[in-house]
Amino acid sequence: MTFVLKILGSNSAAPAFNRNPTSQLLHVEQNYFLIDCGEGTQMQLNKYKVRFNRIDHIFISHLHGDHYLGLTGLLSTMHLNKRTEDLYLFGPPGIGEILTLQFKYSDTRLHYKIHFRELTQIRELIFENENLTVETIPLNHRIQCTGFLFREKPKKRRLNKAVLPQNLSLSQIARLKKGEDLVNGQGEIIYRNEELTLPPKKSRSYAYCSDTSYYEPIIEQITGVDLLYHESTFLEVETQRASETFHSTARQAAKIAQLAKVKKLILGHYSSRYKDLSLFLEEARSIFPNTVLSIEGEETELKDIIIEHTFPISKKPV
Amino acid sequence: MTFVLKILGSNSAAPAFNRNPTSQLLHVEQNYFLIDCGEGTQMQLNKYKVRFNRIDHIFISHLHGDHYLGLTGLLSTMHLNKRTEDLYLFGPPGIGEILTLQFKYSDTRLHYKIHFRELTQIRELIFENENLTVETIPLNHRIQCTGFLFREKPKKRRLNKAVLPQNLSLSQIARLKKGEDLVNGQGEIIYRNEELTLPPKKSRSYAYCSDTSYYEPIIEQITGVDLLYHESTFLEVETQRASETFHSTARQAAKIAQLAKVKKLILGHYSSRYKDLSLFLEEARSIFPNTVLSIEGEETELKDIIIEHTFPISKKPV
Repeated sequence: MTFVLKILGSNSAAPAFNRNPTSQLLHVEQNYFLIDCGEGTQMQLNKYKVRFNRIDHIFISHLHGDHYLGLTGLLSTMHLNKRTEDLYLFGPPGIGEILTLQFKYSDTRLHYKIHFRELTQIRELIFENENLTVETIPLNHRIQCTGFLFREKPKKRRLNKAVLPQNLSLSQIARLKKGEDLVNGQGEIIYRNEELTLPPKKSRSYAYCSDTSYYEPIIEQITGVDLLYHESTFLEVETQRASETFHSTARQAAKIAQLAKVKKLILGHYSSRYKDLSLFLEEARSIFPNTVLSIEGEETELKDIIIEHTFPISKKPV
Repeated sequence: MTFVLKILGSNSAAPAFNRNPTSQLLHVEQNYFLIDCGEGTQMQLNKYKVRFNRIDHIFISHLHGDHYLGLTGLLSTMHLNKRTEDLYLFGPPGIGEILTLQFKYSDTRLHYKIHFRELTQIRELIFENENLTVETIPLNHRIQCTGFLFREKPKKRRLNKAVLPQNLSLSQIARLKKGEDLVNGQGEIIYRNEELTLPPKKSRSYAYCSDTSYYEPIIEQITGVDLLYHESTFLEVETQRASETFHSTARQAAKIAQLAKVKKLILGHYSSRYKDLSLFLEEARSIFPNTVLSIEGEETELKDIIIEHTFPISKKPV
């Protein structure tokens, strides 16, 4: 069960020190979700050998250029690559208008269809498939901006092959997978589900929060996520500037991670004034130790956390 | 007298093999002219250590994304860099509308002023300063597209210090520089200008022709230029495809160079289907030997071609 976040761009506003504007690729099972698409994202996808046509869903947080100026180029290249599959685009009002205008002037008629869902500043469920849901996270930025919460759905219990009787029918196996007990013709329980199955693998979650000022209202929504990306444009010494520009410091990102009791924090959206990023890590870790930096090309895998039974299971009916 | 062309992006349509969409920087004396601005141009400027704020004039040939999608990002970064100097933008109808829309949605109010000159499909003089003129070159592409002809103005004759009499007054020197003869009080010539001066340095010229099909009407306008950049999206084997997409082959670019009797040809705008560019060079050189490839980061200096006197000059009045 794949759940891997790949960083394509880690810088804020202007590119600097070979760091590109924001873009991330989240790979969950068969889906590749592109989150923001700053200028140069298609070059970064090339660099890291991601086939563009695997991307079917693109999420744009807001319309500051460093989060979406690579979109028209990427969509055009998909067109040149003869894409025919539908593409699903989620973003704030205005994207449709901008794309329409640019494609009008370039006289481009895409070979494929884009389904655009216009986002609001209200928390909403915007995507759902058999594996996961995506909700928006309303953030507090200078213009409308939402983060995105990717959350795997609860998984099924798994058959515990070590204790499974040989003579079960297919319909009994199916019932076990659904979490049901096995009963005999008289409706009496012959096996409790817990006896023959293991708990489901943990459902994982990733919250993407960029761009935003320090904003506690998000905490309730992101509490307990496995991985939180929270922007950290500045260091604490620039708290005033962060506040004025509706951005956060590394310390503030860590504070949110701490209050939301997330498992792991990943920083990013660094201002071009900082060449050395180690201070970001140091500052955040002083509040929230399990912090890492987003570094372009690097992947963070959200590993399964499996809670195994550690006690012997009785085979006799209860 | 600087006259240097630097290649920032050399590929067509989609970036590939680390080649970026089209952009070039022409440095003539104190001016840095940016010609086209494909996605990632600001990263390329960073890579080659060009200070953005030296660029005061940007010329956009047409509104296919690979020629202008880096513009909004570059203008935004100039704004973030606290630029206050006016900027002059030349391009087809639509750029103003696109920039206005994007800056509206990002809520950006630039610290500096952009003067936009909307180009037509008619040849016109669009820029002039003390050193040079810029004319548009109407090309034949799928949408409105113009090239640009940069031409140094005729230069003044240069004092030949080796033969200059010591006793000339400042006004006599000024007359000589203007190309006038020196006369005495009675209006008689005492020195012919040619005796005391050397011919002016050659005025150099650069023609940028991209994107276009094979289009002989441009020949008259670009005849004799020192350097011609002519797009060569395809090799000859794809002549049919070149024609259908209003592009040129390397052979066709060379044919134009030959017919226009230019000094040197530089190829570019390579299709992403070609990894190895040596075939472009081979194909073009079979027609026009003085051909080079545009390679990102490389510079072509248009050197002075000085025609020196090779005969002894008499000092006696004629």
